[in-house]
Amino acid sequence: MSGVALGVNGQIEQLAHINSDPAAGGITREVFTADYMTANDYVADLMREIGLSVRLDPFGNLFGRLEGSDPTAPAVMTGSHIDTTLNAGAYDGVLGVLGAIEAVRQLSSGAEGRPRRSIEVVVFAGEEPRFGSGCIGSRALVGQLSREDLDAMRDRSGVSIAEALRGVGLDPDRVGEASLDPSGVMAFVELHIEQGSVLEELGVPIGVVTHIAAPHDMLVTIRGAAAHAGATPMHARRDALAGAVEAAVELERLGRESPSGTTVATVGAISASPGAINVIPGEAELKVDIRDRDLAARDAVADAFLAALAEITERRGLELEVATIARDTPVQCSPVIVDAARAACRELAVEHVEITSGAYHDAMLMSAKVPVGMIFVPSVGGISHSPHEYTKPDDIDRGVHVLAGTLRVLAETP
Amino acid sequence: MSGVALGVNGQIEQLAHINSDPAAGGITREVFTADYMTANDYVADLMREIGLSVRLDPFGNLFGRLEGSDPTAPAVMTGSHIDTTLNAGAYDGVLGVLGAIEAVRQLSSGAEGRPRRSIEVVVFAGEEPRFGSGCIGSRALVGQLSREDLDAMRDRSGVSIAEALRGVGLDPDRVGEASLDPSGVMAFVELHIEQGSVLEELGVPIGVVTHIAAPHDMLVTIRGAAAHAGATPMHARRDALAGAVEAAVELERLGRESPSGTTVATVGAISASPGAINVIPGEAELKVDIRDRDLAARDAVADAFLAALAEITERRGLELEVATIARDTPVQCSPVIVDAARAACRELAVEHVEITSGAYHDAMLMSAKVPVGMIFVPSVGGISHSPHEYTKPDDIDRGVHVLAGTLRVLAETP
Repeated sequence: MSGVALGVNGQIEQLAHINSDPAAGGITREVFTADYMTANDYVADLMREIGLSVRLDPFGNLFGRLEGSDPTAPAVMTGSHIDTTLNAGAYDGVLGVLGAIEAVRQLSSGAEGRPRRSIEVVVFAGEEPRFGSGCIGSRALVGQLSREDLDAMRDRSGVSIAEALRGVGLDPDRVGEASLDPSGVMAFVELHIEQGSVLEELGVPIGVVTHIAAPHDMLVTIRGAAAHAGATPMHARRDALAGAVEAAVELERLGRESPSGTTVATVGAISASPGAINVIPGEAELKVDIRDRDLAARDAVADAFLAALAEITERRGLELEVATIARDTPVQCSPVIVDAARAACRELAVEHVEITSGAYHDAMLMSAKVPVGMIFVPSVGGISHSPHEYTKPDDIDRGVHVLAGTLRVLAETP
Repeated sequence: MSGVALGVNGQIEQLAHINSDPAAGGITREVFTADYMTANDYVADLMREIGLSVRLDPFGNLFGRLEGSDPTAPAVMTGSHIDTTLNAGAYDGVLGVLGAIEAVRQLSSGAEGRPRRSIEVVVFAGEEPRFGSGCIGSRALVGQLSREDLDAMRDRSGVSIAEALRGVGLDPDRVGEASLDPSGVMAFVELHIEQGSVLEELGVPIGVVTHIAAPHDMLVTIRGAAAHAGATPMHARRDALAGAVEAAVELERLGRESPSGTTVATVGAISASPGAINVIPGEAELKVDIRDRDLAARDAVADAFLAALAEITERRGLELEVATIARDTPVQCSPVIVDAARAACRELAVEHVEITSGAYHDAMLMSAKVPVGMIFVPSVGGISHSPHEYTKPDDIDRGVHVLAGTLRVLAETP
């Protein structure tokens, strides 16, 4: 059976088998690994199967283009990513890629014939934060990733983006050629799972995204003095981890009490070294993520957290270092795209609701150059970045139909 | 130059070169690695050089025996360990081994001639907690390590003690043969660096240990639900790490406020998984060490910490699992050995003070079978388990003289 004939749900299942760590129970497919490139090839084959012309840019972003009846008109772009976090689910990103190809197939084979504007499906090379910061594919495309960044940004094993690119046959020195010409794109729209439980709780199958919250991500390093855990009295310690956990408790309080009501604040990773049970940690590290659709509220929490860190480390005689991993601006979606998605829902008689994206997405980065919008389908239990991530097949199919309708409306927009 | 001619300070420097991770800046020599066995051979050669008869037991404990003039009298035993924690110092344990050999050399070559009792130098195979729990060499010797433990106890990489033993040519099935006959030993005395700063602050060069504090070590695992850090509101989270850091803050408070004034409580290692900046941790792990010379005070802190863990995880909807890694009993040193050490100090006109060991030691385990005692020398800045661990050469030499004197007194004790 051809890949296209499997349908989107079958393709999602097939792509899930390209997995670097099946023993962990979930899916691990980090960008610029051999498995990632295999998955990219799988997607490129699907694109070719429905007649798209396929192109890989020097950063590994993959494009499949359906030429419109008016090839000079700025195109409508749609797509997402196929990389995952560690031990993750099958839907995050993948739906927006496979769903886009299926939507374009429905469009181009439908009764209304070839759309006026060209439609381009994009697979962004890396949305998950293998190298510390997310959305590197779309960052490269909008000119927010320099040649220097490719050496500086490294993964857990110390591999730089440049090294990883070379490892899969790409040339880091050509990163500048991976750029988007905004004059050629009238809109970017991304289909995605919600990764939260708003749609499920409301019992509504489609979310039309009006805002994308954006993260302020930091790496906090605290240094004290490693010493024997048994022989060093409590009052004589400079325990780096004791300072770090105090700060982590404070971060959670600040997130909970943020007046916007939409701030979230998370310590996703923590470490202490040397890391032996009988040694007071001389160094501790926290990876911190603070988000809101409300930039002022997010900044207030980040500032209060930095002040708390300064106070805690000063009081405990510890050294503090804070590095910014990402500090992106929340996005308001394009009214043209929001309206197109609403119109598509009405035409298909699908109930929908306006929603904010708490997760960031490539659409957030793309907004620097072109109007963006997003369409959400429900996540069962709101679970994501987990082997338990799941969206029902009917919800998937409905989301693809709405995306196809939205692309049609945008493609015919004068 | 022969190893013995280097003197103890030179030997310590030489042994420090047997290091599995010199790039880290400190010394890493974990038990049952190839480097560890090389170090063991170095020590065995020194033993042979001064005429000791050398024996390795099936668990890798190394013995060097000087036959006394009355070979039927129970022997005096002395020694320590030569394994290290990760990125550690050159003195912890090593002094008690090399110093013991030098003390026996001084004794046997001195004017007083051969001691009446035999003297046995021991190198315990593993005092640092590579496999979670410390003192495995002395545990094996006193019968507190079963064949099942050798499979169950694993290091950070999942290697079991049994696998590690086989890796260096030892036979885990013979662990039962590594046993001490208490009727053959009248005393065990261990020379060690203080690993604290009491001696330095008092300006006294020798500590005669009267008590050894003992640890209650636990591995705490907390489970919640991994979910997207951006898309999951604060109130809807089951963040395993948020629970763990709250418990860690509480542990520090309990340790500080313990009425005994001698309790110490430490989180030496922490982890969160999956460990990505944009994922709420679904699981978190703490390695916890609580110690005191006062068992009732230690138990009170441990009980209060367990109650806090139960309350925190219950309130947050998290699952809790606590495994006991070690729960040893504090030790009162043998008055005979304390008196012998005092007598040796007086004879050498060396100032000394009575002291409690906050660190645990092989002597703590040995106390299950034989009378034990310890002699401490100052640690500069109280620093230990760190590349900055240091004891001055004069303090080393003085400690060795005091040990030699103590062994002489004990060896002549009827």
